[in-house]
Amino acid sequence: MTNMKRKVGVVLSGCGFLDGAEIREAVLTLLALDANDLEAVCIAPDQDQMHVVDHLTGEPVAGATRNVRVEAARIARGDVRDLAAVRADELDALVLPGGFGMAKNCSDFAVAGAAATVHPALAELLRAMHAAGKPIGAICIAPAVVAAVLGRVASPVLTIGDDEATAAALTSMGAEHRDSAVDTPVTDRRNRIVSVAAYMCDARLRDVSAGIHRLVASLVEMLDGAAKAEAGR
Amino acid sequence: MTNMKRKVGVVLSGCGFLDGAEIREAVLTLLALDANDLEAVCIAPDQDQMHVVDHLTGEPVAGATRNVRVEAARIARGDVRDLAAVRADELDALVLPGGFGMAKNCSDFAVAGAAATVHPALAELLRAMHAAGKPIGAICIAPAVVAAVLGRVASPVLTIGDDEATAAALTSMGAEHRDSAVDTPVTDRRNRIVSVAAYMCDARLRDVSAGIHRLVASLVEMLDGAAKAEAGR
Repeated sequence: MTNMKRKVGVVLSGCGFLDGAEIREAVLTLLALDANDLEAVCIAPDQDQMHVVDHLTGEPVAGATRNVRVEAARIARGDVRDLAAVRADELDALVLPGGFGMAKNCSDFAVAGAAATVHPALAELLRAMHAAGKPIGAICIAPAVVAAVLGRVASPVLTIGDDEATAAALTSMGAEHRDSAVDTPVTDRRNRIVSVAAYMCDARLRDVSAGIHRLVASLVEMLDGAAKAEAGR
Repeated sequence: MTNMKRKVGVVLSGCGFLDGAEIREAVLTLLALDANDLEAVCIAPDQDQMHVVDHLTGEPVAGATRNVRVEAARIARGDVRDLAAVRADELDALVLPGGFGMAKNCSDFAVAGAAATVHPALAELLRAMHAAGKPIGAICIAPAVVAAVLGRVASPVLTIGDDEATAAALTSMGAEHRDSAVDTPVTDRRNRIVSVAAYMCDARLRDVSAGIHRLVASLVEMLDGAAKAEAGR
């Protein structure tokens, strides 16, 4: 049965919310996937981070460099695929945990806002997953990356919580924004995209956890729906 | 009510299982504490790590240095107390997640085995918590640190799973070892110490999570027992 597990890509943008992946969101995503008997495939771009931030002071460290994939391996416990080598047909679904790494390493949303461009391999993967009708989950700030890639072509319904400036940026990239609480994902069934605010809100960890578990439950529901439709052909 | 929350120290030995804290164990500890309405107080020694390990290759990085407390702040989202400044009377309980950082930065167990010495401030904190009858939780390899400090004086009953060599080291430090599964903590009620194997086993994340949630439930039970005894005086 192990070989028959559905594979879900988890894109890690580093290790630490100020310059990489939000660690807690990433771990809770991996936990929710395992709890649902889905196989996580950790993925990260093999490139230097935009910068390194001292998480105690919140300040960038002058001259420091770290590689996104190498740092992501701290969360993944070693096994992280190179984003450039991952194809959509290897995966049944894709999840993007948040953290500033999504907006600094996997895109330039932190700098360019609504004019953001996304890492070419991630943009290609998102387009291919969407085109194949494979579910996508986007956590925290990651819906901005989804909007930058799919906003104009698919007008996805997304949430980043209730931050007005970020919501406005998503809207101007072509997405439709819905305010939503930290523990309440928004599912766009037409586009098969589910998003949740997580640490975009000043939230308790237990509520962030509830939101991410529900996001994964929504992915599973979409995967099950697709399996039924396939079986019914 | 917020000010009345019980405070539980969480000692983070860095950020990454090969040279610091096991990230998933640390996050799940924080989640289980929050789910039980306990306030986590993250704590780390303000010193350089023994070394930095590339988690993609598993190899140490020559010449690299990172500070344990600064790296721990990635998991803590900024707020990490300096271990040297934390006193037992500020805390109601203490938890030590695992990862090699426990055996490399918070002690020298990785190098010295049963002859290990523990970071003086952590040894002092463990002795003071134990003397005050305040519950202690130890995850993964952290029971080795507890054994190094309290083994001779308290003969605590501990588990690190079923690894024979590590269990033998704990025994020779004066502890009593019990084999136990990843999802089944061992509670020593006399010493008020609970331990669980977590990633000492080659385990699924959902089972590591179950074990840590049960460890925290055991801590809560001991705290509630103490509160009842206090009220009954």
